[in-house]
Amino acid sequence: MSDRLGEFALIAELFAPLSKSRNAFGLKDDAAILPQRRGHDIIVTTDAIVEGVHFLDTDPPDTVARKALRVNLSDLAAKGARPAGYLMALSLPPRVDMKWLRSFADGLADDQRRFGVDLLGGDTTATAGATAIAITAFGYVPRGTIILRSRARAGDLVFVTGTIGDGAGGLQVARGERKDLSRAARDHLLHRFRVPQPRTTLGPLLRGVANAALDVSDGLVADLGHISETSKVRVVIEAQSVPRSAALHALWGDGPDAIVKALTGGDDYEIAFTASARFERKVMLVSARTGIPVSKIGWVEKGRGVSLRDGAGEPIEIGAGGWSHF
Amino acid sequence: MSDRLGEFALIAELFAPLSKSRNAFGLKDDAAILPQRRGHDIIVTTDAIVEGVHFLDTDPPDTVARKALRVNLSDLAAKGARPAGYLMALSLPPRVDMKWLRSFADGLADDQRRFGVDLLGGDTTATAGATAIAITAFGYVPRGTIILRSRARAGDLVFVTGTIGDGAGGLQVARGERKDLSRAARDHLLHRFRVPQPRTTLGPLLRGVANAALDVSDGLVADLGHISETSKVRVVIEAQSVPRSAALHALWGDGPDAIVKALTGGDDYEIAFTASARFERKVMLVSARTGIPVSKIGWVEKGRGVSLRDGAGEPIEIGAGGWSHF
Repeated sequence: MSDRLGEFALIAELFAPLSKSRNAFGLKDDAAILPQRRGHDIIVTTDAIVEGVHFLDTDPPDTVARKALRVNLSDLAAKGARPAGYLMALSLPPRVDMKWLRSFADGLADDQRRFGVDLLGGDTTATAGATAIAITAFGYVPRGTIILRSRARAGDLVFVTGTIGDGAGGLQVARGERKDLSRAARDHLLHRFRVPQPRTTLGPLLRGVANAALDVSDGLVADLGHISETSKVRVVIEAQSVPRSAALHALWGDGPDAIVKALTGGDDYEIAFTASARFERKVMLVSARTGIPVSKIGWVEKGRGVSLRDGAGEPIEIGAGGWSHF
Repeated sequence: MSDRLGEFALIAELFAPLSKSRNAFGLKDDAAILPQRRGHDIIVTTDAIVEGVHFLDTDPPDTVARKALRVNLSDLAAKGARPAGYLMALSLPPRVDMKWLRSFADGLADDQRRFGVDLLGGDTTATAGATAIAITAFGYVPRGTIILRSRARAGDLVFVTGTIGDGAGGLQVARGERKDLSRAARDHLLHRFRVPQPRTTLGPLLRGVANAALDVSDGLVADLGHISETSKVRVVIEAQSVPRSAALHALWGDGPDAIVKALTGGDDYEIAFTASARFERKVMLVSARTGIPVSKIGWVEKGRGVSLRDGAGEPIEIGAGGWSHF
């Protein structure tokens, strides 16, 4: 479609400096060469973020760019992969101007340096609807060492990085609710919602340690459900052990409802993983080495499903809030 | 975001049969392994299509799926690559129901068989806006044989496959204009708009023959402009030589305006390429072997830009219609 070709040519110029690899031909071709690496597997993933769902039109454009990239880097990290590059398809409504795009490109440039990745290809299309950014990212693991969801075993311990629930809490703050909270708490939650921290240094260290792993994007309970389903095991979580931030305590308090909200909210982008109990010390060393907190939150046993226990070992029921029914 | 998790689980079930490769883990993981091939380069490209821009909400869902996939296969073909697989990020508004999605998945399944490709990964997100489908496709060429845009040389001839302008004409028909046309002409143009024919059999045969190639998506003149710019040459097109379908003649007539509209319309998904004059016979053999018409439409010379000539060799001016200014 030629309606906005001139604009798209400007956008192409804006993004060209993001692509340093010879294999991307300066983003001036239709395609790129994805570098093969001997003795390694190429790991590839795709995730889109959409205005009004994963970010708000009031979010600074550089944080939108960072989130679009980081949710993909988070997937790679959970698989044990070191990120290398990405392709990006942008759908832009007319209200997005060059100022917005320049800030967006700055966010990408900064995160590319931070995470050591390069833009390998892109596409820009017009839309009458919401801004959408679909990224396909790739990285490498030594051959055969990808960490899957499907290899959890009865007897494994369950761990999670960082804190859980901040993403959902941050969305609430981003929507302008709870102005009564302290500025510090609101800033913390807002930042967690807007700029996730993909665990790219920790993920690769879990190779050979974790049996199963994934990144927490749909909500911890739903995501552990994926491990349960594909590994054909039951995952038991001690709700009180799931780490929550002080800011989230300030937002939601400490009742059972608050715990369930944290465990079923989305957009955390932490890594949940299972590992043999004999590796518990190794896991703590990985945490120490990367400076990323890792908490033991439960165990894997025979059976199916995810069950939550309170401090007294009693089951906590989760309502339909965690899953919608179509 | 958990709002539509149950629905997305159903969608995942719907798409799981599209993924047969062991490397995709039944689409039940966050990521897949992209197979490396010794002695080859992996070629990767991304293109999104958006409702209201590349397709209309009245288009049958199976054609929407086909178009989303085929515009990417078209890019691979133009680079000389044989397609192998793809990842897909879907953004779905609430009005898209399971019936629409089933038809969409059927279209993908059929085209996967037709083109020999496999779904390697996906992501589904909600949107309040337009349906958008971003696909990242990959394929292979023998190492070092990718056909770039940037290697056209003065003295090359310029060729194009199929007919030009049908995509733009088809959009007009899809919008309900020109009901006075014959049913056959309208159907032809509509089909060309909705279901492009990626030249996947022809593209790989251009390796070692074409110096430069790309797929015609922005409009022939704009796309040849990319070859001109990256190859630092002038491309001269004899407007009368550019093949147009009988249906397009019926729609737009045969005046200079009709020619300019055809040459600046988008969504053709044919391959435009340049080749040394000594390969002209080889090009015709490729055409004969694949059954895909190939027309000689001009030549490459020293200089810059794209110039159009009429039957008498006089320059044709193209107004701002071909490019918008931001």
